[in-house]
Amino acid sequence: MSAENKITVFETTGFPNPARIRAALAEKNALDQVDFVEIDVMNKEHRTESFYAMNPLGTVPVLRTAEGDFISESTAITEYIDAHFDGVSLTGQTASARGKIHMMQRRAESMVMDAVGTYFHHATDGLGPDLETNQCSQWGNIQLANAKNGLLYFDRLLANSEYVAGDSFSMADITLFYGLAFADFAKVEISAELTNLIDWREKVGQRPSLKG
Amino acid sequence: MSAENKITVFETTGFPNPARIRAALAEKNALDQVDFVEIDVMNKEHRTESFYAMNPLGTVPVLRTAEGDFISESTAITEYIDAHFDGVSLTGQTASARGKIHMMQRRAESMVMDAVGTYFHHATDGLGPDLETNQCSQWGNIQLANAKNGLLYFDRLLANSEYVAGDSFSMADITLFYGLAFADFAKVEISAELTNLIDWREKVGQRPSLKG
Repeated sequence: MSAENKITVFETTGFPNPARIRAALAEKNALDQVDFVEIDVMNKEHRTESFYAMNPLGTVPVLRTAEGDFISESTAITEYIDAHFDGVSLTGQTASARGKIHMMQRRAESMVMDAVGTYFHHATDGLGPDLETNQCSQWGNIQLANAKNGLLYFDRLLANSEYVAGDSFSMADITLFYGLAFADFAKVEISAELTNLIDWREKVGQRPSLKG
Repeated sequence: MSAENKITVFETTGFPNPARIRAALAEKNALDQVDFVEIDVMNKEHRTESFYAMNPLGTVPVLRTAEGDFISESTAITEYIDAHFDGVSLTGQTASARGKIHMMQRRAESMVMDAVGTYFHHATDGLGPDLETNQCSQWGNIQLANAKNGLLYFDRLLANSEYVAGDSFSMADITLFYGLAFADFAKVEISAELTNLIDWREKVGQRPSLKG
């Protein structure tokens, strides 16, 4: 492919990790510089030869770069987007900021997004018996407990921090925001006592990138 | 703390994730610019109040920055090191390189390092009954199967790629290298048929940063 090819994002509407990529693109004012292709996960389009050729792990989202390379894993895609497009930094510009943002990005994943996801896919009906073929309910329930601890951790953190990784909005806020959306979807309760977390969610939810 | 404080790494000798940080520092020729503090995991020093104050997840390694902030999660620490010290880039300098390196870093973690780790901690005696208090052997064995698939995936990848993320050595090579060391330790067999993987391991193992 030539360098002039438009960047393409392969996504599944309504799923939390693809939503992170749309939010990152919106923060960079770059949504109109990218083509989107819908992957029909409910009909196993992510488990076809042609999808595995893009991402052998069979997960959405995937981004095809201007040069024709395929990038998967949401943090990696966000790194690509942040470096490729001008605008506000989502991944940090100093060593300290980069370290802290990547730390909090990982915590938002492991303590909320992925913990909720493992509970959903392993300890509930998930996407249904046709897609959830290797469940481990004991592990799913361990991750439900981890998710609850994760929500409490971020509530305490946000008592003293404007954003997840400090004074500036970053990719870690996007990840936690959609982690909470996934929690709602999977019926993991966000207790009304977590007022710092709920206030932060209300605040960042006003950003155009996270609306709708 | 003042900005002149020396960077400190809290590590546990012989553990695979702390080894990644030493390797990253060695690649940057910065080992002598950092203090190291040993954390006695076998005696639960990582589960003390003072350690949780540095890292609420209780994992090693942790890095204290020159400004006195604590960074945990190996990828985040590597981002800090790569941005803070001069020298070769371990995380990439273009959008495409950053995207690909972060993708492969995550795959080296999820498909090898973390898959082996979950098997070790959940489906074997791990670090012993005093430390392995919440085991899930079914999940551990699912991850053993994932680790074996991961080794096969990287063997095929390295048939056509000099390094894990392309033509240049990166943090993803460090992660896979110590993932294989963890596999040896946990008695996860690296089949002699995986000749591309074994040849790559022999090659990168010659680097001063990965010796000894």
